[in-house]
Amino acid sequence: MSSRIAMLSEMLPDSADAAIILSNENRRYLTGFVSSLGHLLVTREESYLLVDSRYSEAARQQAQNCTVIAYRQFREELVQLIREKKLHHILLEGSAFTLNNAAYMETILHDAEALPIKTDELDRLLGKMRLIKTAEEVGKMRKAQQITEDALTATLKLIKEGVTEKDLALELEFRMRRAGADSVSFDLIALAGKKTSMPHGVPDDNRVHNGDLLLFDIGATVDGYHSDMTRTFAFGKIGSEEKRVYETVRQAQQNALDTVREGVSCGSVDHAARSYIAQAGYEGFFGHSTGHGVGLAIHEDPSVSPDSAFILRQGMVVTVEPGIYLPGKFGVRIEDMVMVTKNGCMNLASLPKELTIL
Amino acid sequence: MSSRIAMLSEMLPDSADAAIILSNENRRYLTGFVSSLGHLLVTREESYLLVDSRYSEAARQQAQNCTVIAYRQFREELVQLIREKKLHHILLEGSAFTLNNAAYMETILHDAEALPIKTDELDRLLGKMRLIKTAEEVGKMRKAQQITEDALTATLKLIKEGVTEKDLALELEFRMRRAGADSVSFDLIALAGKKTSMPHGVPDDNRVHNGDLLLFDIGATVDGYHSDMTRTFAFGKIGSEEKRVYETVRQAQQNALDTVREGVSCGSVDHAARSYIAQAGYEGFFGHSTGHGVGLAIHEDPSVSPDSAFILRQGMVVTVEPGIYLPGKFGVRIEDMVMVTKNGCMNLASLPKELTIL
Repeated sequence: MSSRIAMLSEMLPDSADAAIILSNENRRYLTGFVSSLGHLLVTREESYLLVDSRYSEAARQQAQNCTVIAYRQFREELVQLIREKKLHHILLEGSAFTLNNAAYMETILHDAEALPIKTDELDRLLGKMRLIKTAEEVGKMRKAQQITEDALTATLKLIKEGVTEKDLALELEFRMRRAGADSVSFDLIALAGKKTSMPHGVPDDNRVHNGDLLLFDIGATVDGYHSDMTRTFAFGKIGSEEKRVYETVRQAQQNALDTVREGVSCGSVDHAARSYIAQAGYEGFFGHSTGHGVGLAIHEDPSVSPDSAFILRQGMVVTVEPGIYLPGKFGVRIEDMVMVTKNGCMNLASLPKELTIL
Repeated sequence: MSSRIAMLSEMLPDSADAAIILSNENRRYLTGFVSSLGHLLVTREESYLLVDSRYSEAARQQAQNCTVIAYRQFREELVQLIREKKLHHILLEGSAFTLNNAAYMETILHDAEALPIKTDELDRLLGKMRLIKTAEEVGKMRKAQQITEDALTATLKLIKEGVTEKDLALELEFRMRRAGADSVSFDLIALAGKKTSMPHGVPDDNRVHNGDLLLFDIGATVDGYHSDMTRTFAFGKIGSEEKRVYETVRQAQQNALDTVREGVSCGSVDHAARSYIAQAGYEGFFGHSTGHGVGLAIHEDPSVSPDSAFILRQGMVVTVEPGIYLPGKFGVRIEDMVMVTKNGCMNLASLPKELTIL
């Protein structure tokens, strides 16, 4: 199998002699080198990773399929390299270069008698490459998912009347990081009572009370790969409306999961959840997409939304996370992360989804 | 006193009818509104904060000196607004717009018969405004500093032979966040033994041993404002070279602190530390700048580096953090964050700097 860098090199558009990758995610994806700085120059022949000389040792150990250049003078060394290799049109990573970064790079390219290409073509190529996960990538996401589930299971045992959302979010994060997560996948969401009706609610000093629904949208990263899971629980006795909404979301999520397989459009997965929710009388109370791709980014292609024409392929990993949110009352969301297979999907989440009363 | 938005509006270059601010920091600085999304359009007359309709309530409560527009159709509503106000040349925030964001914005502006100005002028104007801190801003940094010191003081008591750097970094972070920090200022640095020789070392499973130097570079944020402090300690009995280096850094830092006051150049503050270290025989072992501005960003103007012509003014907040790093052996850094005053500075850090043996 040819390397990721070689694949990208072959896919470069005719208009470009080379590409410069600047984002941490894509640099890591292409070279395996983990850092917060560094320019990767991919040409039609060789590729070069330019890093500050302080990172030379780490880069030489980790970076694959490219020549590491530990520079002392970034500008001068890059000008020289571009001139030597006779590169005249260089595609920049449009989602990673700011206008200021690009303006500076343009002065460097000018000195090297080259021009930048400022489109989103590189993002689209890399987005496409990253769609299908290898077994190794899925293994990392599985590990991240396990850490997430273990943290939630342990934290649920500690919940008492009066604990705050912030306490719960912090407890979950600490457990994940102590268990070896690089970090959390995003600012963890732990919401109680009325606040569960806010899909983007932020944990604060709001306290858990008897009769509340509790919603946790959480995830960890392992070797850069994310997990993403949501569970909603009852704390004590809840009302019949809460139970009805919970069951509606649970069945909607199951319907969407049952739709996932190789060859199906993402729009039809979304429809499976959305139409069930509408039929149950909750149309207009499910305002977000059913899911999204997950990998080195917490949100990546494909989008599992109403009009998404993306076709699911084996090895894609997506979330399935419908919800119902009744403003001023409560909300329920249930989310699993699944890998698409030929005849269905492999669910990376294993925590039960029947309504659990804490 | 006129508002920050009004000040920016008056400072807009002649070439621009308006500016669009996209960064979280500058949006917060100008409006007081805390969010991870939103476009602020500052014109010569009024200013407008465009937010997704989900954030309308929060934006209306928090955002000052601008009209909140909670859009349903971002593109259409922005086109209409720009047409109505007859804005033809709009300065974009060059450090915040990616090439892709800018390309999308350009299509919107085109529909509104306007053109983008893609320079770093807005960054420079805002950087200049943010240089001088108000008492309120310094109050937040002081609070962040207090949380940082309390966390370190408590954590020092827990250090035992065999504890890992990662454990220490995690313990510090949890204490800061439990004490009310929004977050940590950066990935906290806790290093032991030989690893202290790496100015950019990352905490890992390396363990604390008797005779080690321990280096902590840590900070918290409160209401978005950062603190930044470094202390180096001895764990048990250390050698005479370690002691000599420690005292050299301590005196170099004191010399730099003694130089800080209104009207002095940042270069001369750097020189005060650097020349002392060189005279003590450690030239070439202090490879970074003496300091940097701190505020809503952990690194902002002014740079306290060898050639920095920045002149210190009352109300600026900078770090003073010389170090000596002996590769393969050990390193020492001592850092305070200070506010510049007319005749000197007010040190926001209060933890002692005499060599402490844990």
